Amino acid sequence: MTPSAHPSASVPGATPPVAPARAAHPAEGVLNGAEHHFALRVYYEDTDLSGVVYHANYLRWFERARSDLLRLLGIDQRAAQEAGEGAWAVSEITLRYRAPARLDDTVLIVSTVEQLGAASCRMRQLAFRGDVLLAEARLRLGFVAPDGRPRAQPKAWRAAFAAITPPIATPPIPEPQ
Amino acid sequence: MTPSAHPSASVPGATPPVAPARAAHPAEGVLNGAEHHFALRVYYEDTDLSGVVYHANYLRWFERARSDLLRLLGIDQRAAQEAGEGAWAVSEITLRYRAPARLDDTVLIVSTVEQLGAASCRMRQLAFRGDVLLAEARLRLGFVAPDGRPRAQPKAWRAAFAAITPPIATPPIPEPQ
Amino acid sequence: MTPSAHPSASVPGATPPVAPARAAHPAEGVLNGAEHHFALRVYYEDTDLSGVVYHANYLRWFERARSDLLRLLGIDQRAAQEAGEGAWAVSEITLRYRAPARLDDTVLIVSTVEQLGAASCRMRQLAFRGDVLLAEARLRLGFVAPDGRPRAQPKAWRAAFAAITPPIATPPIPEPQ
Amino acid sequence: MTPSAHPSASVPGATPPVAPARAAHPAEGVLNGAEHHFALRVYYEDTDLSGVVYHANYLRWFERARSDLLRLLGIDQRAAQEAGEGAWAVSEITLRYRAPARLDDTVLIVSTVEQLGAASCRMRQLAFRGDVLLAEARLRLGFVAPDGRPRAQPKAWRAAFAAITPPIATPPIPEPQ
Repeated sequence: MTPSAHPSASVPGATPPVAPARAAHPAEGVLNGAEHHFALRVYYEDTDLSGVVYHANYLRWFERARSDLLRLLGIDQRAAQEAGEGAWAVSEITLRYRAPARLDDTVLIVSTVEQLGAASCRMRQLAFRGDVLLAEARLRLGFVAPDGRPRAQPKAWRAAFAAITPPIATPPIPEPQ
Repeated sequence: MTPSAHPSASVPGATPPVAPARAAHPAEGVLNGAEHHFALRVYYEDTDLSGVVYHANYLRWFERARSDLLRLLGIDQRAAQEAGEGAWAVSEITLRYRAPARLDDTVLIVSTVEQLGAASCRMRQLAFRGDVLLAEARLRLGFVAPDGRPRAQPKAWRAAFAAITPPIATPPIPEPQ
Repeated sequence: MTPSAHPSASVPGATPPVAPARAAHPAEGVLNGAEHHFALRVYYEDTDLSGVVYHANYLRWFERARSDLLRLLGIDQRAAQEAGEGAWAVSEITLRYRAPARLDDTVLIVSTVEQLGAASCRMRQLAFRGDVLLAEARLRLGFVAPDGRPRAQPKAWRAAFAAITPPIATPPIPEPQ
Repeated sequence: MTPSAHPSASVPGATPPVAPARAAHPAEGVLNGAEHHFALRVYYEDTDLSGVVYHANYLRWFERARSDLLRLLGIDQRAAQEAGEGAWAVSEITLRYRAPARLDDTVLIVSTVEQLGAASCRMRQLAFRGDVLLAEARLRLGFVAPDGRPRAQPKAWRAAFAAITPPIATPPIPEPQ
């Protein structure tokens, strides 16, 4: 039995559907210029007993968005991992929580690359619900070999990143008063 | 900075973008007859050092699909939770793992309601990658008051569920040989 | 700064502390005959907005207990994984939720091996708070090679497991009425 | 079956075991002066396909340590949450990853309060494997009412925290070169 056989009860030998079934798609981000947008919904798994999203889960969300960005740039993380070429790893993150998120909220993760090096990059990632800023992060990522040592990222990756990196680093955001 | 500050954003009142921006959407399932389809992608957070998806995470995925099903049925879980009306809780699950899932896989969760009672229901949830069955689950859910006691589900919920529940319980699936 | 810089630390070569420092230890289970006991505390990360432990997290707890059991049996999972020898994977689980667990609860996981084969075993795992049964699980685990195929477990592992497996399979528990 | 049904269990009212049973205990931290030590072990759930601990999980670990610290200070988080008195929430965190952690590693979380206010505090949390620094974090926490607004922490809490807070704020750590 596979889902492809049928809209309602995909059993081998089932009658083909009269109308073509609508297909479900996973969340997919989009590139709007140099800005990557990725949307997600808040589920029970994301919350804790305080009724809002558990703080560590923003890091999971930001990582989903970065993975989606790589995918959109044509970079195959899994192939690189399996071939022993290496992977991006977070080396530093500063995260400010601005407003809580709740069950069923639609959250938009907006990611930008701020600076690009041979074996590292700096990114900014923001989480919004509508126009309410929920959390903002600045990250430093390093490209690491399977043994954990820094390594230059593959040339094709660097070229792909360069296309969405501003020529001059974004000036720092003023600290909140 | 909010997404509305960017030409790529689509926020009420924002300056019209020069080029129409594509919008990012969270994963949304679809109802194909009595079958609910929900797709998701595998991220780093889902895997463990064995290289495949950590077994407990299928339960998170199945719960996302059930939440999406409620949403499609017009049921507002969060309002019910906040109003103290209660919520569905898993009381029993049997889960068989058939094949591993890996980073970047697209996984389709196919959910059906098999039996519906006043304060409980039985569901079946399958996880597929293409036509490969990854995992299958049978669940019993109970509707519970905030104090954890069983309670009849709201009438509107029952009606919504009844619309996707077969009149006669699905016969059991033959066990694998 | 490392813990060794502190009089309270106990690192080889450190200056002896003035007062004997108490050392913090991770949770460690014990074998009481054929029964493995492993205790844990409920943290924010384990709960969801309903105020109780999210159902999927019992699978994480049961896995911690099984890992601790292997450790107590002298089995080095990580070495086996890194050497490509394989690992235990859950192939089937039936889980019944009996009572909710809450923040700060101390939970005892009681694990027993019910049946042992060359490449598989059956286990039972119970979660208690005091004498209140929170959840009970029956699991089938298979030993798998890194490529995911079934493989006989190493002889030393089998011998270790045999020492805590009853000669005759435990009779099934009567179903709840 | 409850653990009390077994000669190995130590439940009030149980028949005394023939041989004294060792009891399993959850991880418990210790206060060594103003420094809180909390140890944990790395399980499968903590790792990802890169073979090391997933970066977001350090936030779960740090939170476990803070919860344990509150418990040791005689503060009942759950009672405060249930009584609507409020809770500590992370408002800002800077986290640097220094070395990866792997399955079965014993990790020591060392926590200190650096500054204490009426409704906020600053903490430093370090993660070590032996004398290898794995990660270091600086956090700002705010005490928040159930509606998410800042609120002064209960007097008894402040007094307990004051006992482990240095009179003068710790000078900042020099940045890595």
